[in-house]
Amino acid sequence: MELFFSPLACSMATRITLYEIGAEARFVPVEPRTKTLPDGSDYRALHPLGLVPALRTDDGALLTENASILQHLADRHPEARLAPSDPAGRTELHEWLSFVGTELHKTVFNPLLDTAASDVVRAYAMSKAEPRLSFLAQHLEGRAFLLDAFSVADAYASTVLGWAPATPIDLAKWPALAAYVARVRERPSVQRALADELPLYRASLR
Amino acid sequence: MELFFSPLACSMATRITLYEIGAEARFVPVEPRTKTLPDGSDYRALHPLGLVPALRTDDGALLTENASILQHLADRHPEARLAPSDPAGRTELHEWLSFVGTELHKTVFNPLLDTAASDVVRAYAMSKAEPRLSFLAQHLEGRAFLLDAFSVADAYASTVLGWAPATPIDLAKWPALAAYVARVRERPSVQRALADELPLYRASLR
Repeated sequence: MELFFSPLACSMATRITLYEIGAEARFVPVEPRTKTLPDGSDYRALHPLGLVPALRTDDGALLTENASILQHLADRHPEARLAPSDPAGRTELHEWLSFVGTELHKTVFNPLLDTAASDVVRAYAMSKAEPRLSFLAQHLEGRAFLLDAFSVADAYASTVLGWAPATPIDLAKWPALAAYVARVRERPSVQRALADELPLYRASLR
Repeated sequence: MELFFSPLACSMATRITLYEIGAEARFVPVEPRTKTLPDGSDYRALHPLGLVPALRTDDGALLTENASILQHLADRHPEARLAPSDPAGRTELHEWLSFVGTELHKTVFNPLLDTAASDVVRAYAMSKAEPRLSFLAQHLEGRAFLLDAFSVADAYASTVLGWAPATPIDLAKWPALAAYVARVRERPSVQRALADELPLYRASLR
C-alpha cells in the first residue's frame, strides 16, 4: 500500500490506523501548497482535487476520502477491532465519521487553517465552532471514546481536534475535549504518528 | 419511523430512500430558521445542533447524519438494492457519500444557501465550487449513477445539486451534472419527494 499524505493533515488518521493494524505501507508526502510529489510530479494527476489522504491499495486502486479509507482498512483487519461490525455499532461509526468530516473538519477547521481564507471567512467558521464543539463535548462526557471502544472515528476526530492550537479555538474551554485528545494521544500508534509527522510539518513551515 | 426534515433540505435524500424502499414513516417538519416543531416545541431539545435529517427508529433511537441514516435504511432493506454489499462496492459508496457530504454539501453549498453568510463568505465558497463540480462531472461522464447502479449516494448527490438554482452555480456549465440530475429526477421516488416538498418549501418563503 501507498499512503499519500501531508504532515499533520487529516491523512494522519490513516497513518494512525495503519500503525494500529500493523500494516506495511509506503508514505508518500504531498507538498500542501504546491501539491508536488517527491519526484517533482503533480499529485493532481492522481487526484484532481489534490486532497489527502489517498490510499493506493495492493490491487492498484486509488481510494480517496477519509471516511472510506479508514473503514476499508478497519474492515480488512477485523482483528484490530477498529470498527464495530454489528449493524447498530456500524451506524454509530458512520454517524461520527460523518459528523467529524462534515461539521468539524469542513465547516469549522478547514476555513480556519486555509491561508487563502480572509478574516471574514474565518469569523464565519468560528461562529460555527462553539455549538459543534459543545455538542461533541457533551457526547464525550463520561465516555473514553466516540463509540464504546477506540475506533477509526477517534483517529479522525483526535487528528482534527489536534489542529486547534493553529486556530483561535481553545480546547481548554471544553475539558471533555481536551481530556479526550490527551487520552487518544496516549496510544502508541498516535505517539508514533506524531513523532513521524511533527518534524515534517515543522520543516514545511520553513 | 419518524423523519425530521426541512423542505428541500438534505433530508430529502432520506425521504427519497424511504419511498424507494416503500417504508412507512411519519414526516415531521422542522422550521428551518426557528427550528420549531409543529407542536411549537424546540427541535434542538432532540438534536442540539438543529440539523436535519434525524430519524427516529421504531426502537426509539434517534439517528443523525445523512451518510449514516441512508446506509441504515439501505442495509435494513437489502431487497431495494440501494447500497452495494460487497466490500469494494461499499468502499465506493463510502467514498461518494463522504465526497458529497464534505466537499459539495458543507464546503460549497451550505455557505451559499446560508442567509447569515456574507458576500465574502459566499465568494469563498464559490472559489471551491468549480474544481469540485468538474471533478464530479468527470466521474459521471459516460455513467448513469455515481456507482454501478442507483444508490443512496445518488439520492444525496442529486438533492445537493438540486440546490444550484438557489445559488450562483449554473449546472449548465457541466452537461454531465445537468443530465445526471435530470436522470435521477425521472425516478418515481424523486418525483414524489419533490411533489411533497416543493409546496412546503414555497410556503416557507412567504
